[in-house]
Amino acid sequence: MAHDIRILTESELRGAVTLDLPLIDAIEAGFAALAGGAVVMPPVLSMALPQVHGEVDVKTAYVPGLEGFAIKVSPGFFDNPKRGLPSLNGLMVLLSATTGQVRAVFLDNGYLTDLRTAAAGAVAARHLAPPVVETLGILGTGVQARLQARAAHLVRPFANCILWGRDFAKASRCAEDIAKSTGAICRVAANPAEVLAASQLVVTTTPATVPLITPEMLHPGLHITAMGSDQAGKAEVAGAAFAAMDMAVCDDVAQCEAFGELRGARAAGYAGQPASLGQVVTGTAPGRISDGQVTLCDLTGTGVQDTAIASFVIGCLGDAGTVIRN
Amino acid sequence: MAHDIRILTESELRGAVTLDLPLIDAIEAGFAALAGGAVVMPPVLSMALPQVHGEVDVKTAYVPGLEGFAIKVSPGFFDNPKRGLPSLNGLMVLLSATTGQVRAVFLDNGYLTDLRTAAAGAVAARHLAPPVVETLGILGTGVQARLQARAAHLVRPFANCILWGRDFAKASRCAEDIAKSTGAICRVAANPAEVLAASQLVVTTTPATVPLITPEMLHPGLHITAMGSDQAGKAEVAGAAFAAMDMAVCDDVAQCEAFGELRGARAAGYAGQPASLGQVVTGTAPGRISDGQVTLCDLTGTGVQDTAIASFVIGCLGDAGTVIRN
Repeated sequence: MAHDIRILTESELRGAVTLDLPLIDAIEAGFAALAGGAVVMPPVLSMALPQVHGEVDVKTAYVPGLEGFAIKVSPGFFDNPKRGLPSLNGLMVLLSATTGQVRAVFLDNGYLTDLRTAAAGAVAARHLAPPVVETLGILGTGVQARLQARAAHLVRPFANCILWGRDFAKASRCAEDIAKSTGAICRVAANPAEVLAASQLVVTTTPATVPLITPEMLHPGLHITAMGSDQAGKAEVAGAAFAAMDMAVCDDVAQCEAFGELRGARAAGYAGQPASLGQVVTGTAPGRISDGQVTLCDLTGTGVQDTAIASFVIGCLGDAGTVIRN
Repeated sequence: MAHDIRILTESELRGAVTLDLPLIDAIEAGFAALAGGAVVMPPVLSMALPQVHGEVDVKTAYVPGLEGFAIKVSPGFFDNPKRGLPSLNGLMVLLSATTGQVRAVFLDNGYLTDLRTAAAGAVAARHLAPPVVETLGILGTGVQARLQARAAHLVRPFANCILWGRDFAKASRCAEDIAKSTGAICRVAANPAEVLAASQLVVTTTPATVPLITPEMLHPGLHITAMGSDQAGKAEVAGAAFAAMDMAVCDDVAQCEAFGELRGARAAGYAGQPASLGQVVTGTAPGRISDGQVTLCDLTGTGVQDTAIASFVIGCLGDAGTVIRN
């Protein structure tokens, strides 16, 4: 029996969906469902292709109550910039959660992944950052540096932003972009320590393999969201700094033990049991309980975010896209 | 940088690709590559959804020398027939093996999976069945029963076919269809034992959970290809029958230990080390070496077949499909 499949290009998706509070709420609801225990989220299918300097990840999650679920394919081919192409691309497929039929193919080249990743940062900030954030700190100068700043501003409307990256010119451009998108006064710092000293909320968005944040940089009333590390070998927060937190929260504890900051913390002897972000969202684990706490949220990116954004997007499309009868 | 993505519907794919010797050769080349050791094939991503009587598998493989690789999404939702829909559907995405960019989306609803599964049966028959097959035996009455018969006929042009299924009416219709597609004289048997007694090549295509083939049914000069079991809990060949083979071959030994007939054989104490089908194809393991041998090929379905057929299909399309600039 033929049914319609909606195909959306990246530009159609950019026209239909942006980073806003309704999207953040949808991602937050996904984390809440994940904590409820009825979500089915298998381990990531991950294929390393060293022979072509590439990798492919496939993520999915079934979330009860949503009409569909996403299968998200994320290739990263790191010689692409030499060819004038972005390293990351890929697509999401939305399937019916009742029949398994394909409902939509989002040829997003990673745009929806960027949005749902930034939205998770906002969810973390909403529950874990101090109520008032005067200054946002950002480590990193890429797409996520910009998007995380926009996401944080939606839930903690900071007046100042301080940013560090290895490349000063890139950091300056990123600071300009964040100033434009948020209206904050932005400046570039000389090093990560300067960023942390000035900030109440710090988001790390780098591919660092040697930790940037060490214990002596921590101070009361600080929240850090570390979203750069998503595979073994990356680390933005030293194990000792992780262990020094008053509270550590993971998007998914098992994933963070394999791919996130928790991995390095475990290797350094940290034996604590972090709560999940969904537990914090649903109130089954505490969020920030005092102004002086030092808190961390370790984000590796979950299939539940992909299903949440794909389900959200389908309601934003109007008549955009190409419909194929199949 | 925008590039073109080709979208193909099931009917466009059915018009462009059929079960023939070039396709079988392409699948055989995939198995050969798999044995060569340079293929990257991660474990299947498998998501069971008991709450909706469904499951989703995702398979992939990178095959050096091919321009692309497939990510194949196979949902099975077993309440669909109550809704007038097929249980199986899904799609394949073909990505560039150089850049990771999406090249094509095949909305095949499982058609290409059906073809590549049947083609693997032909590869097994080519290397393991006796040179002359007078009579083909089939257990099962579904799509694969029909396709496996067509595939076998391309490499072992049998004159007779004997078929068994639990439902006599379905078995009769299947026998008629096989007679039409192959020209063979087809009849329905009373039980699996009758099928095995009459055949030199038997293909099992059932979802049996209690083995249909027991040791006393085996006879010299018999080859069995068991392709029905693709998850823990299914079994078509009793462990003792597997252990009694002169030679057992697996499409992928690790997968067959988890999902195939080898699983039951291991549970029954079988300690042998089957060759892979790719080793047989490349000659690094022997195929059939005498007329009297009793041989088995255990097929669970591999990502390398998906990449092989997706790469083959892209060369068959002419100008079929919808091109989307992304």
